[in-house]
Amino acid sequence: MTETIVMKFGGSSVADPDKVRLVAGRFVDAKRRGFDVVGTVSAMGKTTDTLLALASDVSPSPNPRELDMLLSTGERIACALVAMAIHDLGEEAVSFTGSQAGILTDSVHTRAKIREIRGDRIRAALEQGKIALVAGFQGFSRDTMDVTTLGRGGTDATAVALAAALGGACEIYSDVPGVFTADPRIVPGARKLDVVSYDEMLEMAASGAKVLMLRSVELARSHGVRIHARSTFSEEEGTWVQEPEGMEQPIVSAVTHSETDVVFTLTGIPDRPGVAAMIFDTVASAQVNVDTIIQNVVHGRAEMSFSVPAEDVPATRSALDASQAELGSFDVGENHGLGKVSLVGAGMRSHPGVAATMFRTLAELGINLEMISTSPIKISCMIARDRIPEAVRGLHAAFRLEREPEREPTI
Amino acid sequence: MTETIVMKFGGSSVADPDKVRLVAGRFVDAKRRGFDVVGTVSAMGKTTDTLLALASDVSPSPNPRELDMLLSTGERIACALVAMAIHDLGEEAVSFTGSQAGILTDSVHTRAKIREIRGDRIRAALEQGKIALVAGFQGFSRDTMDVTTLGRGGTDATAVALAAALGGACEIYSDVPGVFTADPRIVPGARKLDVVSYDEMLEMAASGAKVLMLRSVELARSHGVRIHARSTFSEEEGTWVQEPEGMEQPIVSAVTHSETDVVFTLTGIPDRPGVAAMIFDTVASAQVNVDTIIQNVVHGRAEMSFSVPAEDVPATRSALDASQAELGSFDVGENHGLGKVSLVGAGMRSHPGVAATMFRTLAELGINLEMISTSPIKISCMIARDRIPEAVRGLHAAFRLEREPEREPTI
Repeated sequence: MTETIVMKFGGSSVADPDKVRLVAGRFVDAKRRGFDVVGTVSAMGKTTDTLLALASDVSPSPNPRELDMLLSTGERIACALVAMAIHDLGEEAVSFTGSQAGILTDSVHTRAKIREIRGDRIRAALEQGKIALVAGFQGFSRDTMDVTTLGRGGTDATAVALAAALGGACEIYSDVPGVFTADPRIVPGARKLDVVSYDEMLEMAASGAKVLMLRSVELARSHGVRIHARSTFSEEEGTWVQEPEGMEQPIVSAVTHSETDVVFTLTGIPDRPGVAAMIFDTVASAQVNVDTIIQNVVHGRAEMSFSVPAEDVPATRSALDASQAELGSFDVGENHGLGKVSLVGAGMRSHPGVAATMFRTLAELGINLEMISTSPIKISCMIARDRIPEAVRGLHAAFRLEREPEREPTI
Repeated sequence: MTETIVMKFGGSSVADPDKVRLVAGRFVDAKRRGFDVVGTVSAMGKTTDTLLALASDVSPSPNPRELDMLLSTGERIACALVAMAIHDLGEEAVSFTGSQAGILTDSVHTRAKIREIRGDRIRAALEQGKIALVAGFQGFSRDTMDVTTLGRGGTDATAVALAAALGGACEIYSDVPGVFTADPRIVPGARKLDVVSYDEMLEMAASGAKVLMLRSVELARSHGVRIHARSTFSEEEGTWVQEPEGMEQPIVSAVTHSETDVVFTLTGIPDRPGVAAMIFDTVASAQVNVDTIIQNVVHGRAEMSFSVPAEDVPATRSALDASQAELGSFDVGENHGLGKVSLVGAGMRSHPGVAATMFRTLAELGINLEMISTSPIKISCMIARDRIPEAVRGLHAAFRLEREPEREPTI
């Protein structure tokens, strides 16, 4: 039986006709290596931004159903063009909209979640020896029969869901060759990782690694889909994201960072039980990814701080306004001067010494820690944003990440 | 019972966000005047040309199925934007793709014909008090389940077909206020016609009037749909195209012209019965609109001339190449120096004197007639292209078209 492979290319990989032909060539190569090939691509270059700008030129608050009708065209255009280029290379291809491909979602416009993939037309195309291309980032709701879009990271989610539904690995192509021990633009000695576990990748994505979106990694983990993150522009192997093999896992796999977080500090919060929880409920239901949270009492008044990614700042502000309307007034401060540096490694679970080494390294560089948050396999520190590159280089060196990994000893 | 109205706006009417809002206002006005409103719009401005250019940048001969996937996005974008703008004006609107609207076509990509409209979702939207917007120029084939586009004049055809399926008049909006006795840019005294018959409109569209496409008028005639051709930018009544009322019909309704026809002359055609028919079969099956045809024998050799619209020239050339491959070689000449001036009027049927007046008028202007063709309600002359404006003005004056029409006497 032929093995199925799902290949996903982002918007920058199909940004112009030359790149469209190059991507078509990658699909054709995979087909000729003997795979059943399913492809999904994002909208070309800045198409989605252009469509969003058009919508906001027309309407101050575009109707969400119509916004989905609008935005879903970008990926359809890209898929149709790639299909044309594949034909010119001598293979057959057929492009499908999300609804033609049977990508069923809930009916939450602009950020729908995939419920199920009925891949009948995809399977039929594969059986006919065709390359099946599926417009990313979109599906349709069986309840309303309307087109939906999947929101941020939607095309990666499409790719992983297709791999889960059809059985097969999922290759996610981008302009970087894989997952690195740190951002190579900051750390010249950063090393490409051959394999990372789902848990590590989740922490890395949450703490600033841009290669894969949190959402697609979660989807991959819950369906056991292996992801191969690799470069559009090279044949080189990338990084596999999968269940860890064997007992040994690296103590520290990578240093990640993020320079765009914004820290909100709330002071004078009404001192009643459950108030903090209610505020976070409101923020969470606005789909904000709250990261580090600190709550303490200063001079007898409750104070609470949390960081959110820059793109979630407007949603956070509205959610806090709504909370104040409900709970009474409190002060909201925003700090745009901080960044986050994180260490991620599955072996950390059994090596509590990592935090101490991290803090000592940053202290030796004279960097103050503003906030700290931890998970079993991650430690994050909020520090002054302009010290981020130094901190990343210092930590990469301190944990010797330029070398092959230290591993947790076998039991 | 509420009357249904189908309103169609072309690409220049929705070319930018301001115009999108203006068009939205026209839909809302009609809704508030008490109509059930169904809208269809073309792609914004030059969108279709841009998509075609993108396709030809990617592929020398784009796959037709994928070309339809690509081109159909233009109208979807325009519809979604108009729907957003309608919401902002306080009415509800819902946009549908051709397939969501149930526009079933044959499966001939890039020039599909509408077979049937299953307007279930449109009717449901109207019953809910919503304005239903249907992406023009597209449908889907039930045989292949693929998206199709309707080719030239596709959105007008969508509008007329919707009016036929839903029952109601069809308003076709453009940047001209209606159908005129001649092109007002050439004849300052040209008069807007209140009513023209289907037959007249067909002849006028075929002979150069740009207001309505031949195809949509044919569709309207065969389904008894009344078309109201009017201006996007004014409230003024336009021209109704419908079955003639009463017995009187104007002898001459309008002078039309076309400056882009190309005359092909074939010489040395093999002298066997049926050869001319075979050549025209080949040309016709390439979807070329052959107009005037002349066949004669010069110095004992068969010679044949015919005119085609400029946009059909490439298709004509390929069809003639194919004919030569099959029938043996003959000479093909092209004359790009001619144009066509036509008189159209339903009353001509019983007034044979019209041709004589036309020929005399042109002779007095010193204009040679290169080819002549007639129908019961039209006379066309091919003349030197640079004499067209003079000829149009001369004929408009000779038949006194600036005045209310002369009419055929009642029996």
